[in-house]
Amino acid sequence: MFPGHVRIVEMGPRDGLQNEARPVSVATRIALVEALADAGLRSIETGSFVSPKWVPQMAGTAEVLAGLTPRPGVDYPVLVPNLKGLEAALAAGTREIAVFGAASESFSRANINCSIAESLERFAPVVERALAAGLRVRGYVSCVLGCPYEGAVSPEAVARVAAALAGMGCYEVSLGDTIGTGTPLAARRMVEVVAEHVPLERLALHFHDTYGQALANILACLELGVSVVDSAVAGLGGCPYAKGASGNVATEDVVYMLDGMGIGTGVDLPRLAAAGRMICVALEREPASRVARALAAKTNEWEVQEPQVPGG
Amino acid sequence: MFPGHVRIVEMGPRDGLQNEARPVSVATRIALVEALADAGLRSIETGSFVSPKWVPQMAGTAEVLAGLTPRPGVDYPVLVPNLKGLEAALAAGTREIAVFGAASESFSRANINCSIAESLERFAPVVERALAAGLRVRGYVSCVLGCPYEGAVSPEAVARVAAALAGMGCYEVSLGDTIGTGTPLAARRMVEVVAEHVPLERLALHFHDTYGQALANILACLELGVSVVDSAVAGLGGCPYAKGASGNVATEDVVYMLDGMGIGTGVDLPRLAAAGRMICVALEREPASRVARALAAKTNEWEVQEPQVPGG
Repeated sequence: MFPGHVRIVEMGPRDGLQNEARPVSVATRIALVEALADAGLRSIETGSFVSPKWVPQMAGTAEVLAGLTPRPGVDYPVLVPNLKGLEAALAAGTREIAVFGAASESFSRANINCSIAESLERFAPVVERALAAGLRVRGYVSCVLGCPYEGAVSPEAVARVAAALAGMGCYEVSLGDTIGTGTPLAARRMVEVVAEHVPLERLALHFHDTYGQALANILACLELGVSVVDSAVAGLGGCPYAKGASGNVATEDVVYMLDGMGIGTGVDLPRLAAAGRMICVALEREPASRVARALAAKTNEWEVQEPQVPGG
Repeated sequence: MFPGHVRIVEMGPRDGLQNEARPVSVATRIALVEALADAGLRSIETGSFVSPKWVPQMAGTAEVLAGLTPRPGVDYPVLVPNLKGLEAALAAGTREIAVFGAASESFSRANINCSIAESLERFAPVVERALAAGLRVRGYVSCVLGCPYEGAVSPEAVARVAAALAGMGCYEVSLGDTIGTGTPLAARRMVEVVAEHVPLERLALHFHDTYGQALANILACLELGVSVVDSAVAGLGGCPYAKGASGNVATEDVVYMLDGMGIGTGVDLPRLAAAGRMICVALEREPASRVARALAAKTNEWEVQEPQVPGG
């Protein structure tokens, strides 16, 4: 049973840009977030408070947040890895943060240098303090359909981490196919198992399109009733022309599919595509979104670069 | 209910190459077909007997057929537009042909300069003669989920053309989303309506990936029990970097999804990807298949160009 409405959580300014080789200016990041809000997106992950040594692309997230015009009903969550990041997020006036764990031990150790259990122990006080400060907290689980080191990941391993994050107080747990190797029945089965431990209405899909499977996987899971999808405008996060392309599923492609299925998103596709063109001009790349490329070919809109890339 | 096995009808040497700007040699076309057969494909549309003035990329189809090493159980169908094409196909020793109609009047007039009814009248004697000569005949219906001139196309219009082709004696009718604008529920609904007039087991899916929807649309229709899918290695038929990219869904992406779902195809993915790399080298383009790009990035196989492009 498909949902009547899907909430899209836009990842372009964070998961997208942090994985692009070329950093963009604070002014351009602000313009991107505003353009996405203009297109109707209501949850836009805007940056992260991690060390600029680790992720130089996310330096200046406080300045990005400070530069946004507040809009009622629009959230700008940021990723925080630890208490230090949380303090920075609180100082910047954040109302929502996101924390993250992996479903694979090897990936956890490679990515954040500790076991899954240790990572959850580290996040518990972060979440506790964030909730005490009145913030909303979202959780991510990575490698839910495969791990670059271990290969297959069991749905039960995903469910344990998801349940731990939900138990800490995350209002929603986003299930990440980090390496994009999942296929539809595996994705559906994984969600079914996780939903035995975390209510379905608190689950989100976060699929990368490395193997072109993301939209089919989303379709298979929406049929279960999941109604939250993470995606990135223009499929940011992995150049389609480079080896190892691994961007998020493109928001344009998700919105096009949902529009066609009569499932509401509140997102205006032409405005969304314009936001994607703008950031792709800044990144000097073409969009990974097939919808964006098809619309550009159809209308020659590619030459019309509104909204403009800020000079800064 | 998903099928246990899917038969893939490979479109790369015909629908793929005829839409590539750069023509390739007869020797390269033979090498491609042989590589696809080596990968396990059993239905490979090999060319068309149309005027080289219309489609220069398909000139020399008789030479391609003559150059193939016969293999038991492998079919090499060719497209024919009229009796003259059929005579050429018969002279070349073809065992299977394909004919085509459109579900949209405007597209029919623009593409083959006659009404739908007139096109069916023209094909009737072609099919009759082909059947009398002992050939198998496959039918295509184009624009089943949208027309570049008319926009929406009704499932009933598709069903009428499909029923006419089946009634002439086509053993299978392939339903083409020519411009790739379809979405999953529309695709499923279209197949349901057509299946009221032509048995489901005689229907095939032929979806282009212009808007990135093809795999999701295939998934939605396989769930009805359809078990034949047309696709083109490397997503041939529309350069992913050019405006108006409109290739067939990539065979690699289809096989990857079906492998993951436990649905047999008999196709060996690494060999298939090697065939795709070979033809992309000849075309001097990158594959439109995300699976092909991901495998190349993972294994650096891109540098290993086996099977080799013939010098000719």
